[in-house]
Amino acid sequence: MNLPHSVAERAQDHVNNDRLQAAIAALARFGGRDDGGVARETLTEIDLASRRHLIDLARALGCEVSIDDCANLFFRRRGSTDLPPVLTGSHGDTQPVGGKLDGAYGVLAGLEVIAALNDAGITTLRPIDVVAWTNEEGSRFGPGAMGSSAYVEPARLAQYRESLDRNQISFGSALDAALAAVADVPRRPMQQPMAACVELHIEQGPVLERASVPLGVVTGIQAVRWFEVTCTGMAAHAGTTPMDERADAMAAAVGIAQRLYSLAAREATSQLRLTLGRWQVGPNSINTIPGKVTFSVDVRCVDDAVLARFEHTLRTMTQAADWRGSMTVACIFQRAPTLFPDGMLRLIEQACTRASQSPPLRLTSGAFHDAMYLAEHCPTAMIFVPSKGGISHNAAEETAPHELLLGVQALAYTVAALANQ
Amino acid sequence: MNLPHSVAERAQDHVNNDRLQAAIAALARFGGRDDGGVARETLTEIDLASRRHLIDLARALGCEVSIDDCANLFFRRRGSTDLPPVLTGSHGDTQPVGGKLDGAYGVLAGLEVIAALNDAGITTLRPIDVVAWTNEEGSRFGPGAMGSSAYVEPARLAQYRESLDRNQISFGSALDAALAAVADVPRRPMQQPMAACVELHIEQGPVLERASVPLGVVTGIQAVRWFEVTCTGMAAHAGTTPMDERADAMAAAVGIAQRLYSLAAREATSQLRLTLGRWQVGPNSINTIPGKVTFSVDVRCVDDAVLARFEHTLRTMTQAADWRGSMTVACIFQRAPTLFPDGMLRLIEQACTRASQSPPLRLTSGAFHDAMYLAEHCPTAMIFVPSKGGISHNAAEETAPHELLLGVQALAYTVAALANQ
Repeated sequence: MNLPHSVAERAQDHVNNDRLQAAIAALARFGGRDDGGVARETLTEIDLASRRHLIDLARALGCEVSIDDCANLFFRRRGSTDLPPVLTGSHGDTQPVGGKLDGAYGVLAGLEVIAALNDAGITTLRPIDVVAWTNEEGSRFGPGAMGSSAYVEPARLAQYRESLDRNQISFGSALDAALAAVADVPRRPMQQPMAACVELHIEQGPVLERASVPLGVVTGIQAVRWFEVTCTGMAAHAGTTPMDERADAMAAAVGIAQRLYSLAAREATSQLRLTLGRWQVGPNSINTIPGKVTFSVDVRCVDDAVLARFEHTLRTMTQAADWRGSMTVACIFQRAPTLFPDGMLRLIEQACTRASQSPPLRLTSGAFHDAMYLAEHCPTAMIFVPSKGGISHNAAEETAPHELLLGVQALAYTVAALANQ
Repeated sequence: MNLPHSVAERAQDHVNNDRLQAAIAALARFGGRDDGGVARETLTEIDLASRRHLIDLARALGCEVSIDDCANLFFRRRGSTDLPPVLTGSHGDTQPVGGKLDGAYGVLAGLEVIAALNDAGITTLRPIDVVAWTNEEGSRFGPGAMGSSAYVEPARLAQYRESLDRNQISFGSALDAALAAVADVPRRPMQQPMAACVELHIEQGPVLERASVPLGVVTGIQAVRWFEVTCTGMAAHAGTTPMDERADAMAAAVGIAQRLYSLAAREATSQLRLTLGRWQVGPNSINTIPGKVTFSVDVRCVDDAVLARFEHTLRTMTQAADWRGSMTVACIFQRAPTLFPDGMLRLIEQACTRASQSPPLRLTSGAFHDAMYLAEHCPTAMIFVPSKGGISHNAAEETAPHELLLGVQALAYTVAALANQ
């Protein structure tokens, strides 16, 4: 790649910290809570108001605003050509109680890059699109990352429209209302070609903080497999049933769970991550032997082969379980690892090094992001900034202001460079 | 003891199988279900209707009916003296879905004993009281065995009255309505002296069936201790949090649970029974590391010293737990073993042997019964008949009719003998 670095450097140098921090504070008022958290689930009244706020911000920066059938919002800064654009941005929705940075930071960073290019008087070769994806969190309507996954494969949208929230409102009807609320914004097709995509996000984990490095180059996203293990025994009286006559579903489940934790400990070097997060116990009474226990297995690794080996062991283990009941394993979700292309990583590494005057850390993302789906569509990569204590999806989510600034500076360099290729 | 065995034998021989089976079927219609189960929770409309049915039955047998402040119903057959009575009976309420025998069998058996004494033309020295205790099950209002425990210690009633059901109705208001519904029945004081108490009940466990013995002499009721173990870690993202930075409350809980199950296996010879029945997991989400797990420990044994040793090990184990979170153990209930007096056991053994033409089995009760509280008040014991498959608290609860008959025959002998001492 022959990079026009002087333009990228000028863009980076024009990022304005005060404007960035003010923009983050302003968006956080949409759904802001007394504890510093933000409650802005997708397509709620609060989310729609925040979208109007973003549209106004983007238009004030001279952007053309458009929206697609999944209510993904696009803010375009024109280039000197109509070549496929460079995409940046993230999502504007939060968990039921989230922080002010998860998602919002990436969207506002994109708008700050545009402001910086404006200030620097730069016209890029390619257009730059800043996107605010719909429903990344997946907390109101499942699954998550609806907007980005529908963008790269629009056939997904029909099924997403049927998804219901806890009040039995469908995603489809919420979507139609959201689109009707911005009737002044022209519709644009999905699945349009992109030159590249860069997403800036908080890490949501402790790796950067632990290493005392302010910027991370994300090399990819872990593979994941989700299972549900169901142990079916016989509910019976805790006092009257002798131990050797029991079909205790909890004793069986605990036995398997303990062996899975041991297995994960033995896989420490492969960085396998194991979480048994959701448990359903029936009848769940102090003095009744559990008759049925179901627990979830969330297992992740950069190396899909490690997960395949884990799954094999899990299935062998449950089939061989020696007790009076039965045990089943169902795979309920599975995704191969996402590996971002090396050229993108090297460009981001340059951008980060210049911003922070030190080399960034290479790390993988343990969480899913919209970039995971964009990687199926165009060369994609991500930049991380630290999360204090590794905390996210929580009102206590926080990143130091100077680290937020460094992240946007790295993004500005990267986007400007890509937009001139 | 100098027992008037000829009277006891005549009482036993006058037990009428057809009348007994008909009485069981008639009471089972109050709350009867299509699947053969009975839904007659305490002090519901159905339970009040069944109480009226029992009152009518008892009056037809010539009994004097009375009720106490906890709505325990007493049916008295007069003796030739006013010496303290012999008490028999059980409870009329069921679990949300129970069978037709648990409790009901003991009450109807008592009435059948009175009918047999009538048929035999026997007048006993002491009165005989048949009781239907209020709220033995504890499923609608906690705790269980309210009626019998309040009878032996009336001060308990004030607190029981505050107990709320799932519709926020207090036990006190349900009690007042039940008492008002039988305004024709005279009130009697609680805590009155009793000469002895015998309760006939289904085993609710598999021991008699396994031994192919139709009658059991219950030597006592197991000691029990209930604990709540709470593991407090830190909820965090399943994807982004490295294994060595986790404070995974479920991993900690599973580790302790596995060690408790192993401990119980090593105590097999002491017949310790361990149930980890109730689990609460927060936030209980597939992709979030559990931040808090609470589980119940129900541990029972005939030998209280074994439970003391178990508790010591549990506390040591949790204090020594090596992880990033904290762990607490709270004892939420504890009861020493109940040992029935040897004289009562020998009498019941004679009664059972004559009824079934073979020696009964001595066994301990794993379940609580009203007799557990009566044992604090007067010489008490219990007779068990088998439960098919050990099943109870279930529509499938069943005992063979000839075994039900043998149980009442043994009870008639015992009660008649005691009432002539």
